[in-house]
Amino acid sequence: MDIIALQQKLTEFANEREWNEFHTPKNLAMALAGEAGELLAEFQWLSAEQSCALTTQQLTAVKYEMADVLLYLLRLADKLGVDLEQAAYEKIALNAEKYTIALAKGNALKYNQLEE
Amino acid sequence: MDIIALQQKLTEFANEREWNEFHTPKNLAMALAGEAGELLAEFQWLSAEQSCALTTQQLTAVKYEMADVLLYLLRLADKLGVDLEQAAYEKIALNAEKYTIALAKGNALKYNQLEE
Amino acid sequence: MDIIALQQKLTEFANEREWNEFHTPKNLAMALAGEAGELLAEFQWLSAEQSCALTTQQLTAVKYEMADVLLYLLRLADKLGVDLEQAAYEKIALNAEKYTIALAKGNALKYNQLEE
Amino acid sequence: MDIIALQQKLTEFANEREWNEFHTPKNLAMALAGEAGELLAEFQWLSAEQSCALTTQQLTAVKYEMADVLLYLLRLADKLGVDLEQAAYEKIALNAEKYTIALAKGNALKYNQLEE
Repeated sequence: MDIIALQQKLTEFANEREWNEFHTPKNLAMALAGEAGELLAEFQWLSAEQSCALTTQQLTAVKYEMADVLLYLLRLADKLGVDLEQAAYEKIALNAEKYTIALAKGNALKYNQLEE
Repeated sequence: MDIIALQQKLTEFANEREWNEFHTPKNLAMALAGEAGELLAEFQWLSAEQSCALTTQQLTAVKYEMADVLLYLLRLADKLGVDLEQAAYEKIALNAEKYTIALAKGNALKYNQLEE
Repeated sequence: MDIIALQQKLTEFANEREWNEFHTPKNLAMALAGEAGELLAEFQWLSAEQSCALTTQQLTAVKYEMADVLLYLLRLADKLGVDLEQAAYEKIALNAEKYTIALAKGNALKYNQLEE
Repeated sequence: MDIIALQQKLTEFANEREWNEFHTPKNLAMALAGEAGELLAEFQWLSAEQSCALTTQQLTAVKYEMADVLLYLLRLADKLGVDLEQAAYEKIALNAEKYTIALAKGNALKYNQLEE
């Protein structure tokens, strides 16, 4: 994925609409969470099984909510100068320490509950 | 960003911990929204100005919450077979129709309020 | 539930800590959504069945996340002068129009999908 | 607020529409978080000042999103047997320990950052 190209497209989009004053990191985080809420709403009444076998209509709706989350995430990363790919690898490494295979295998407890 | 490489890494991570049974699309959407909530919490008491000038400590916390959102988004896309980059461009095109420059310039109303 | 008493308690709590400057409606809405995200996280890896039969430890955690949501909701209502009980009855009446029994029976589609 | 009366109304509402199978605690937590996301969306592009001086139209929208959050919270409490009022007072007491006046006065850091 060409993140820079997408971010430039989003910058143009915002510039053309004079939306920069609205796009503070705080507001972008809110917008991202709002979109995550809409993504959630697509799944809220589905069973686990239904969520694994979405209809075409459901998948399209889910896809665009995921895109909305991504777009705000890219925009926020751009505003904050965050390298998302590097952050992702760093976070995976941190998670590997918190959720060691020995402790986490077969359960999905939070790391602070793993020893209990 | 090499999405496939990151998704493979996440698949391995989940396989090693036997987490696949937990990673239904429904549950991944919940986890993503939970992380979006944590991202939100980093900004909730900051002023607009403070959110534009994060301290190093704040930026690090924000960066890892953004990474968490990204990781669940990538995992969900993998499970659903969604091409995130294509979805992003399609959504930008849809947004350009909903938020035409003429209507949206200088305001950030929702598209169904734009004519009011 | 004595809402006024709880709201007064929250006002005192905020006053004693000089938190009023932080408690704008915008920030309170963020805090509420952050707590909703924490509530979500308690359920994210549970099956439907497990969520209906929480352990004592899980129920305690869930209870306090619900309390957090309620406290921010009460605080926000206080700041905005919203009568929550009246708003609840008004919303139920609106929902009854949107989700008529004839259309909604046995399915949980959103109201704009009900005719499809 | 007569919580029992509201909960009975919600139970009837769900019974008439045969929605009980959808109303697992897990799904209700998702729905609550989705509504919190909609509440958030009402505030996302507003400045702190604007959020303190909502227009009538904005306040109405906010009021009904708050009502949606409350209704799912009441329904969840009913399903789980949680006494919301008691939980609220217990949580305030816990918060008073975590955020002592001496430490928290004039700042809104999270309790685990207060000593830093």
